[in-house]
Amino acid sequence: MPRPTPLSGFPEFLPSGRIVEQRVLASLADTFELHGFASIETRAVETMESLTRKGEIDKEVYVVRRLHAEPHAADELGLHFDLTVPFARYVLENAGRLVFPFRRYQIQKAWRGERPQEGRYREFLQADIDIVGQDALAAHHDVELPLVTLEALEKLHRDFRVPPVQMSVNNRQLSEGFYLGLGAEDPMAVLQRVDKLDKIGPAAVAELLRGIGLSPAAAQLCLDLATIRSEDESFVERVQALGVEHPLLEAGLASLAQVVRTAAALVPGRLVADLKIARGLDYYTGTVYETSMLGFESLGSISSGGRYDSLASDGRTTYPGVGLSIGVSRILVPLIGKGTLAASRPVPTCVLVALDNEEMRFEAMATAAQLRARGISTEVAPSADRFGKQIRYADRRGIPFVWFATGEVKDIRSGAQVAADPASWLPPEADLRPCVVRSSLA
Amino acid sequence: MPRPTPLSGFPEFLPSGRIVEQRVLASLADTFELHGFASIETRAVETMESLTRKGEIDKEVYVVRRLHAEPHAADELGLHFDLTVPFARYVLENAGRLVFPFRRYQIQKAWRGERPQEGRYREFLQADIDIVGQDALAAHHDVELPLVTLEALEKLHRDFRVPPVQMSVNNRQLSEGFYLGLGAEDPMAVLQRVDKLDKIGPAAVAELLRGIGLSPAAAQLCLDLATIRSEDESFVERVQALGVEHPLLEAGLASLAQVVRTAAALVPGRLVADLKIARGLDYYTGTVYETSMLGFESLGSISSGGRYDSLASDGRTTYPGVGLSIGVSRILVPLIGKGTLAASRPVPTCVLVALDNEEMRFEAMATAAQLRARGISTEVAPSADRFGKQIRYADRRGIPFVWFATGEVKDIRSGAQVAADPASWLPPEADLRPCVVRSSLA
Repeated sequence: MPRPTPLSGFPEFLPSGRIVEQRVLASLADTFELHGFASIETRAVETMESLTRKGEIDKEVYVVRRLHAEPHAADELGLHFDLTVPFARYVLENAGRLVFPFRRYQIQKAWRGERPQEGRYREFLQADIDIVGQDALAAHHDVELPLVTLEALEKLHRDFRVPPVQMSVNNRQLSEGFYLGLGAEDPMAVLQRVDKLDKIGPAAVAELLRGIGLSPAAAQLCLDLATIRSEDESFVERVQALGVEHPLLEAGLASLAQVVRTAAALVPGRLVADLKIARGLDYYTGTVYETSMLGFESLGSISSGGRYDSLASDGRTTYPGVGLSIGVSRILVPLIGKGTLAASRPVPTCVLVALDNEEMRFEAMATAAQLRARGISTEVAPSADRFGKQIRYADRRGIPFVWFATGEVKDIRSGAQVAADPASWLPPEADLRPCVVRSSLA
Repeated sequence: MPRPTPLSGFPEFLPSGRIVEQRVLASLADTFELHGFASIETRAVETMESLTRKGEIDKEVYVVRRLHAEPHAADELGLHFDLTVPFARYVLENAGRLVFPFRRYQIQKAWRGERPQEGRYREFLQADIDIVGQDALAAHHDVELPLVTLEALEKLHRDFRVPPVQMSVNNRQLSEGFYLGLGAEDPMAVLQRVDKLDKIGPAAVAELLRGIGLSPAAAQLCLDLATIRSEDESFVERVQALGVEHPLLEAGLASLAQVVRTAAALVPGRLVADLKIARGLDYYTGTVYETSMLGFESLGSISSGGRYDSLASDGRTTYPGVGLSIGVSRILVPLIGKGTLAASRPVPTCVLVALDNEEMRFEAMATAAQLRARGISTEVAPSADRFGKQIRYADRRGIPFVWFATGEVKDIRSGAQVAADPASWLPPEADLRPCVVRSSLA
């Protein structure tokens, strides 16, 4: 086999990077569980029917078929491209066995057959939280979900020095009510055009809006709305000053004000009302969220989501929900790839038990077992080379301690060697397990 | 959307079952890390070229292609059907950045497009450990790997009452040397026929062996060899008593004796020499392992593996290894599905903070945050219903404690209600997190 080369868009980590990923995932799961979210995993595949329901997505789906399927058999299965479609299906399939509001988190890979580029992969890891009700879901969950997400991201910042974030929030009812109040016939069409603001600029957006029948004054008001941004409730007055009125607009303003007011009290500076946020997918019906990692804005949003009032329905019952998804690969692949985040060592091993000779292996195994029984990761030297070679092996592996049959343990970084009992010796807390370190260069 | 139905062969768990799976995976990872194995994950897809290299496997591969790929484009990617092929590719791809012997564990799903049946799924979770050397790998690792695997499985038995296991071990050199010593021209052909012993019985195997040129006496000796089984080294004398001689046979006997001798001392009764074990895949070259879960033998082997001397090679360097794979889905899907193993509650939540009225939500959130800061999973009641209804909500979710704004906490199982301070109150240790319970019926 010639040496294989990586597949573009399918990131993989070396063991050191994987340790960073493990710590980050454990931290996210810990925050989610502290807030009462239960873990689920769904199968990697969904039926093509459920994957292609939302028209714009189908071009990115990876179809899955057996190698020996009939050549003209219909494609029945595809890899999921997010965790929301599988979750909606899981809720419908198991509705009778779940208690609502149902709170779940889900940390899994997803796949999209799109062209790999910065921040976009063909295989990527997502960490999602959602709360789903039966027929109704209270508005306070629109406040709760971004707070849990920000707490999870803040913990990554505090514990692992992942860069800090800022979440931008808007409300679909607010925008749609505003457009309807202006007399726009198709508020979704306006929303989609305003969504291009960052890409094509205000003049081009105004032209697009006039193209779907808005007056120049109305188009300008849409642009004015999109420039409004505040960390407190002051956005409400600024919207009202534009002079547009509609009941949906009022409802959206009240809902967004509630989110911003609570967040300003609990996580000041981390959440802002930003009235140009639209989110492309069409199933959102209320609050929408996007999140920038400060200093890494070019990656795009590292955590997005929103309220959806009709994602799942079996005809008789609807399951409205609100959810947020953290793009774990989008955060970690660049930070680990550039060496900004790394593990303090690439192996779990804390102690290498050295061998005087191969006949001592059984005794060395017993020493190792004593250390492991107290939670100390230990391996026995792979061969009874000279001690210098065994120490170099530990050094190359990043193992900090070498244990000798004489009952002494050496810290190979300092060279300090002391007598020790395998039934009681403990390494310094910081050496027990590899931890995440941040490069001082970054 | 009509209510969806499960896809055959793609098992999914309800939240309670998922908690069992999480605890089991954490336990396995813990054992592996205590022994110095580093975690890696590989992408879900490999090139079709590397997946179809071993002829007999290709019929089970799931091919992956973009929905909008050219209709006659060649299939380039498939889902991995085990974790060994991806690991071999990972080792070759990253050889310059790994330290050998390289010890890794890998817990991931794999996919096979075969007909679902008891113990066989189309999507299944595996937990693999392997040690791989550069050009050479010492024989003592053939002893180490089954000991680590048995320790991991024993911990599942002890902590979660997963049924106990017994591992059967053989050695390919022993069998091949024996067949060569008998004058067989193609020892692999003999091995493949003897492998059918449990399915078709000794008379039919003897006939197959005569069909490839063995004398009736030689065929009988092959059957005699396959009946030898012992928990200690006595198998060596019984093989020698058959009167066959060959250098490979001697090497295999010595190697297997070393495995059995060490295991008999460290994990008595858990590992037996069983000379009929063959393992179908053709890349094993030395020790081979299979494992039965006692009382669940019909599931087949729940942990298998072996020594492979040439799985990975880039032409100049070979990477011999020895590995074992634990079939997590094969163990857990039946045990969770039948209710034998379950979680003590289906949610992480320990405390529900009740609400006097909706205006108290902000204060209730502050109480919840105090409890979470000390590791207690807490949620705030979704609505300010009458207390009876809020308590019923906790009960239906399986949440053991309800906290009242008066500063009292009620254990809803006993009804006991006591004054408590959110800055210092702790639940009983057993209630802090859901744990795995085994049904007394099973």
